Amino acid sequence: MSLPAINLERLRSDLLSLFEIGYDPQTKGVTRLGFTPADNEAKQWLINRFENEGFCAHVDHAGNVRGRLSDEPVRQVVATGSHIDTVISGGMFDGTLGVIAGLEVLRVVKENNIQLQTPLEVFAFAEEEGRFGGMMGVQALIGELTPEWILKAHDVNGVMLEDELKNSGLDPLSVLDARVDTNYFKSFVELHIEQGPVLDTVKKPIGVVTSISGVYKWIVRLIGKSNHAGTAPMNMRSDAFMGLANFANEILRIIDEEGSDKSRLTVGKVDLKPGHAHTVPGEVEFTLVGRDVDADVMQALADSCRKVLSAIARKHKLMFEFEQMSWLDPQPMSDNIINLIQAEAKGLDLPFEVMPSGAGHDAQHMAKVTDTGMIFVPSIAGVSHAPDEWTHWQDIEKGANLLLRTLLKLAS
Amino acid sequence: MSLPAINLERLRSDLLSLFEIGYDPQTKGVTRLGFTPADNEAKQWLINRFENEGFCAHVDHAGNVRGRLSDEPVRQVVATGSHIDTVISGGMFDGTLGVIAGLEVLRVVKENNIQLQTPLEVFAFAEEEGRFGGMMGVQALIGELTPEWILKAHDVNGVMLEDELKNSGLDPLSVLDARVDTNYFKSFVELHIEQGPVLDTVKKPIGVVTSISGVYKWIVRLIGKSNHAGTAPMNMRSDAFMGLANFANEILRIIDEEGSDKSRLTVGKVDLKPGHAHTVPGEVEFTLVGRDVDADVMQALADSCRKVLSAIARKHKLMFEFEQMSWLDPQPMSDNIINLIQAEAKGLDLPFEVMPSGAGHDAQHMAKVTDTGMIFVPSIAGVSHAPDEWTHWQDIEKGANLLLRTLLKLAS
Repeated sequence: MSLPAINLERLRSDLLSLFEIGYDPQTKGVTRLGFTPADNEAKQWLINRFENEGFCAHVDHAGNVRGRLSDEPVRQVVATGSHIDTVISGGMFDGTLGVIAGLEVLRVVKENNIQLQTPLEVFAFAEEEGRFGGMMGVQALIGELTPEWILKAHDVNGVMLEDELKNSGLDPLSVLDARVDTNYFKSFVELHIEQGPVLDTVKKPIGVVTSISGVYKWIVRLIGKSNHAGTAPMNMRSDAFMGLANFANEILRIIDEEGSDKSRLTVGKVDLKPGHAHTVPGEVEFTLVGRDVDADVMQALADSCRKVLSAIARKHKLMFEFEQMSWLDPQPMSDNIINLIQAEAKGLDLPFEVMPSGAGHDAQHMAKVTDTGMIFVPSIAGVSHAPDEWTHWQDIEKGANLLLRTLLKLAS
Repeated sequence: MSLPAINLERLRSDLLSLFEIGYDPQTKGVTRLGFTPADNEAKQWLINRFENEGFCAHVDHAGNVRGRLSDEPVRQVVATGSHIDTVISGGMFDGTLGVIAGLEVLRVVKENNIQLQTPLEVFAFAEEEGRFGGMMGVQALIGELTPEWILKAHDVNGVMLEDELKNSGLDPLSVLDARVDTNYFKSFVELHIEQGPVLDTVKKPIGVVTSISGVYKWIVRLIGKSNHAGTAPMNMRSDAFMGLANFANEILRIIDEEGSDKSRLTVGKVDLKPGHAHTVPGEVEFTLVGRDVDADVMQALADSCRKVLSAIARKHKLMFEFEQMSWLDPQPMSDNIINLIQAEAKGLDLPFEVMPSGAGHDAQHMAKVTDTGMIFVPSIAGVSHAPDEWTHWQDIEKGANLLLRTLLKLAS
């Protein structure tokens, strides 16, 4: 008996169709920010895809699209899915792959008439990309949202979540009603592109995710003294930028001493004041984002950053202050699911890398309420959140088949 | 016989009056950008001051104010002066001190009925602060301007020099007629605030300037690859900012190896792309301004910066490119005048520091056509180009008396 397998042509055709919604011919990217008309159109397209197959699908109170083989009441499901909202000028696979693969898994189950102990449910979680500062859909589903947050949330342009919900036909406070009893989930598995260079570098088609990195974001200010760049001798300066440069040069040492090969420290945004070529910068404000998969290591990295910055500030006669904008603990995946995915990958003869996820995903929230795992497929050159995000179709097929096999095991 | 001396009260009163023209009560600074109404009003005020004393003054074709004791024709003059235009929200002394001190010297000559071999002439050079990208007034005077430059020059807001000249009652192409035969100048001495911290630090009232630093300005770009700050492992990044940080950390070594205690290397402006907290910066553009008083040292600094940037770019897998926006050779002052100023300072029992000027001044252009020297007085904490620019009145008096004595020696 041949094993059931996904049909790449159907999956490919769906991904290409969905890519057209919000596609910008100029950037060759796709823009479907959460709760914009393009996002709402994509949700409707998705519901139509489910219904065309004879499946059941609906949008819940939080804007999540939920699809199953039939609408008969169930006590518990094995869940899969991801999201179909995108960043500005994103690529074809981020999020969408996990949703469309879930839809394809349902098709395979139906056409092979596979009998399952626990039904499957496919989720397209609303607003994963954080237009409104969180992962709204999945957080509503697991009961993490508050009315205060819903009424205050706005995007970078000041557009209120409340208004966008209404424009999308949703009632803002009813978002809370999207919450489901956590016993409803037997387990959750998400297929996603890696969005990083590791799999492409090690030339393996599959990543088995062990943990989603925790992350903290600081805004750091070093304040010295602005001076004329000609008249201020090097040894009489309080050059804020030189303080930052000194710190940046210690980053790899900090990781060597306190971190792991999973640690990341990034200075991504730098503002100098006054920011003139002929003036010694008297002030610098920069972001520092730290990550690790271990909460203690993350804390050690943060402590070390603070000490190194203090020491450098003293040396350069600078004032040092920082604000912790966010702190999210690492989220380990379930050992059961990690082991199951590895076993299924071996069964399919797929080389895999056991690895953390450096980016955040819906799975990090699902992992709080149920056994959760993630499967990665390679991103060419690690590119994501950009029009040239790409994954080879052969890898898409391998990842989707591994998802299928894992879900069937969990649901049988 | 008591020596003639300047009258601090008169000098102080003039500086305070001139400070009112363009004064902004909000910033407590003064704004008289070249050829704006405030600048033109200040020029008229200055002419009135000369005429009230019975002296002669006029605005030349380039907008320079020129004042002498009388209007009798002369073959040659000993010149002094500086400028009365300012930056945005500047202080009371930058430029104006040298002009008002020149006026006061004329008063002293007249009231003491001092007979001079060579007459004195006081200049308020037009547009020294570089609103239009040069030092227009003094460059017109020594014949350095071209019609092309005059017609193309504009400020950062796109306002054309040509239009501002017309608005100031000047004919654009007649600016070239401001040129004088260089034999007209026997010598030139400029009194100016230091605009740096050296004199305030060494607690000396006088700086004798040996040279005006040369300066080059580069715009440097390091181009790597933008990546998600979570998914890109530290060792798979091409982080453009880390390249800049590495370079900045080599700056003091470059000066130790190739430069002198007069060398300056400054990174004043930094732009990261995309400039997001959660993205590894794929590109950085920054300014690098280098200075030294020796042309060979300046070249060695520039060569070393280029080599270090190339090596760092290779190491970080970055592309390195730079554009040299300007290169101005150092301009030594005249040994005769340097020695004379030192001798007169000793005669007045004034402690002095022999030092370079890190900032540019009208004197650097005058030095090309005549024996030229500069006298500095301290800037408290090195502050200039800001409302809190300040110099103690006692030091103003000392500097002005030293200017007086130097000019009298040169003119006798």
